[in-house]
Amino acid sequence: MKTRSVGVIGGGQLARMMIAPATELAIDLKVFAESEASPAAMAATVIGDYTNFESVLAFAKSVDVITFDHEHVPLTVVKGLEAAGISVQPNAHALNFAQNKLEMRHALSVLGVPCPNWAKIEGAATLDEFIKANGGAAVVKTAMGGYDGKGVRVVRSSQEVLDWLSLGKPLLAEQKVEFTRELAQLVARNVDGQIAVWPVVQTIQREGVCAEVHSPAPNANLQAAEVIARAIAEGLGVTGVLAVEMFETADGRLLVNELAMRPHNSGHFSIEGSVTSQFEQHLRAVSNLPLGSTEATAKHAVMLNLLGVDDNNTFVEHFEKAMTLAPEARIHVYGKAARKGRKMGHVTATSNGTLGDALAIARAAANALLQG
Amino acid sequence: MKTRSVGVIGGGQLARMMIAPATELAIDLKVFAESEASPAAMAATVIGDYTNFESVLAFAKSVDVITFDHEHVPLTVVKGLEAAGISVQPNAHALNFAQNKLEMRHALSVLGVPCPNWAKIEGAATLDEFIKANGGAAVVKTAMGGYDGKGVRVVRSSQEVLDWLSLGKPLLAEQKVEFTRELAQLVARNVDGQIAVWPVVQTIQREGVCAEVHSPAPNANLQAAEVIARAIAEGLGVTGVLAVEMFETADGRLLVNELAMRPHNSGHFSIEGSVTSQFEQHLRAVSNLPLGSTEATAKHAVMLNLLGVDDNNTFVEHFEKAMTLAPEARIHVYGKAARKGRKMGHVTATSNGTLGDALAIARAAANALLQG
Repeated sequence: MKTRSVGVIGGGQLARMMIAPATELAIDLKVFAESEASPAAMAATVIGDYTNFESVLAFAKSVDVITFDHEHVPLTVVKGLEAAGISVQPNAHALNFAQNKLEMRHALSVLGVPCPNWAKIEGAATLDEFIKANGGAAVVKTAMGGYDGKGVRVVRSSQEVLDWLSLGKPLLAEQKVEFTRELAQLVARNVDGQIAVWPVVQTIQREGVCAEVHSPAPNANLQAAEVIARAIAEGLGVTGVLAVEMFETADGRLLVNELAMRPHNSGHFSIEGSVTSQFEQHLRAVSNLPLGSTEATAKHAVMLNLLGVDDNNTFVEHFEKAMTLAPEARIHVYGKAARKGRKMGHVTATSNGTLGDALAIARAAANALLQG
Repeated sequence: MKTRSVGVIGGGQLARMMIAPATELAIDLKVFAESEASPAAMAATVIGDYTNFESVLAFAKSVDVITFDHEHVPLTVVKGLEAAGISVQPNAHALNFAQNKLEMRHALSVLGVPCPNWAKIEGAATLDEFIKANGGAAVVKTAMGGYDGKGVRVVRSSQEVLDWLSLGKPLLAEQKVEFTRELAQLVARNVDGQIAVWPVVQTIQREGVCAEVHSPAPNANLQAAEVIARAIAEGLGVTGVLAVEMFETADGRLLVNELAMRPHNSGHFSIEGSVTSQFEQHLRAVSNLPLGSTEATAKHAVMLNLLGVDDNNTFVEHFEKAMTLAPEARIHVYGKAARKGRKMGHVTATSNGTLGDALAIARAAANALLQG
C-alpha cells in the first residue's frame, strides 16, 4: 500500500481539523505538538519544541512532507529541513512572506498587487513623515510575530511606538485604510502549481479577532478578489492553502491587508459549505494531489467563532440547549481549556434561502453555547 | 470541562468514520479494536478480544457509554456489562433482535410490522411444508452470525440445508419475495427516545453485497418507510442508528428484510448528503444528546462502494487519476489491506440536478480507483 503521510508542525485547531480529511483519504497524519493536551492530540506523534531543529528534523524524517498549523516555526529551522532534503510545503521562500510583513509588502508591491500605502520604518522621523503624508494616522506593525491584533497599533505620532522603535528592528507603517468591510480570499495551490479558488468571503472582526464569516461575501467583486489571490499564490510560490485578507473601500477597491499560508479561520465554513474543505484541500495540495472542487454546497454559509467567555465554559456544557434550539447548526469544539477571548470552537450553518436564514441558525446555536 | 466519552467495540470502518464527528463535538472516542492495524487504529485504546468479558469490562469502565461497530459481541458479554452498571447503547434487549433473526421476526410480527412470510424451522419436514406453501422456494437463514449474504441460502428443498439442520439449531425460513427493488430506511433514536429519520434510500446489491446507494430512493413511499422504521426503533427500544433493509414489491408493499443497530453501509452517503451524518447522529444518540437535522444537503446523493479487486490495489494508488477526472467526488478509503471483494472504501457524490449527474461523478471516480 502506497501510504501518503503528512507531518504538521503545531497541534492547534487547524491540525485538529485536518484529522477528518486525512482519515477519509487514508493519509497518515502526524502532528508535532507543543503539549500533551493540544487540540490535535489524537494525531500527535511528537511532543516537542518547534524551535529545536534536531527535534523537528527527526519528526520530518518520519513523513513525506512537512506543513504547518501556524507560522511561528523559525525560518532557520525550515531552511535546515530543506537543506536536509525534506519537502516543506509551503517552502521557506514562500513562508518568509507570511512571517515577515515587511518582506510581504515589498514582494506584493513588486507583483503589482494593490496594497495600502506602506513604508519601512527605522526611525521616528520617517514614521512621522509617513503619518503626515497619510492623513495624520498610520497602522504600525512589528515585522514579525503579530496575529489577531497583537503587534499592531494605530498611531498619530511616533511617540506612541517609541518602545518598538527602541528595539532597533525595522517596523512596517501602513496607511490607515478607510474600508467599508473586510474580505478574505482563500486559494489553494498544489506542488505542481494547480490552483483552486473558493468564492471570496466577508469577515467581521470584533476587537481585532475574527467573529463572523459570510460566504460568499454579498455583492462582492469575486473576480477581482480571485485575480489578486491567484497573483499572490503564483507570484510568491505558495503551496497549500493561502488566505488573503483584504479591505474593500467605498470606491470598490480591494487592498491586501494580511496573508496566512495555511488553513485559516476565514475558511472554516468550507467544512460544510464547500464540496472540498480547506483542510482536505491543504492536505491534497501539500501532498501534490489534484485539488478538489471548491463549489459551494449551499447558497449561503456562515461561520461564527466561539470565543471563550470565562475560565469555565468550554461550550460542551451547553450542547443540549444549543442542539435543541438549532438542530441544523454544525457545532465544532476544539477541546481547549476555557479562557476568555480564546478561539475555542465555531458554529457553521448553511442555507439555500437567505443569508439571514443561515445567520439565524448559527446565532441560535452560538448564543446557547456562549450563554448557556 | 465536562468531557463526554464513547467507547466503541470493534475497530472497523464504522468506528473509523466516527472519528470525524467525535473530533467536531469534542467527544473522547475510544475504540476496542481486534488488531493493531484496524481501520479505527487512530482511536484505539485497547487491542483485545471482544468475547473476553473481563477485557471488555475494563475498557467499558473508561468511558461514559459503550456502543458497537458490529453486532458480533456475545449477548452474554453485553448483559454482563449491564449487570456491572455500564450504559450500553443499544442495550442487550434491543441488540438481541439484531443478532438473532428468529427473535427479530417474532418481535416484528408482534409489532405488526410487514415482513415476508416466515417460520421457525427445527426439522426437514417443517421446512418442506413451508416451501410448498410459499411457491416452491424459501430463503433459509441461520438465526445468528450471517451478514453480506453469508448464512443465507435460497432453497427448493430441505435437502439443500441438511448440513445446517444437522447442527440442531433452529433456522429461519422466509418467503422468497419477488421484489422490484431494495430500500433501506435509516433512523436514529437517542436514549430519551427522540427520533430522527433520513429519507429512505435505494440500495443496489451485487453478489449479496451493497454496491450502490441512491438517496433519496426515486419515487419511493417515504412516509410508509418512515412509519415502519419508527415502529421498529420504538417497539424494540433501539438506541443509536438503526438501518431497516426492506423489499419493495411490484404492488408497492414494503417488507422488512434485515435490521442493523449501528451506522450502516446504506447511510454512508449522509456524511456529505445530510446536514447530520449517521456517524455524528449515532454519537449524539448514544450520548443522549439532541439529534441533528437529517435534511438533505442536495437533491440527490449517491454512494458507490469500493470493493477490493485484488490483493494489491488499495485505491490510494489511483488518487491522481480519480481526483483529476472527478474533482467533485468525495473519496473515502478505510486504510485496509487489499483483498478481493472486501469493503475498502466508498465514493459519494451529490447533485442538485439529476440522479444521473451524481452517478456520473461517482462512477468516474470509482472506475478510476478500481481500474487505475
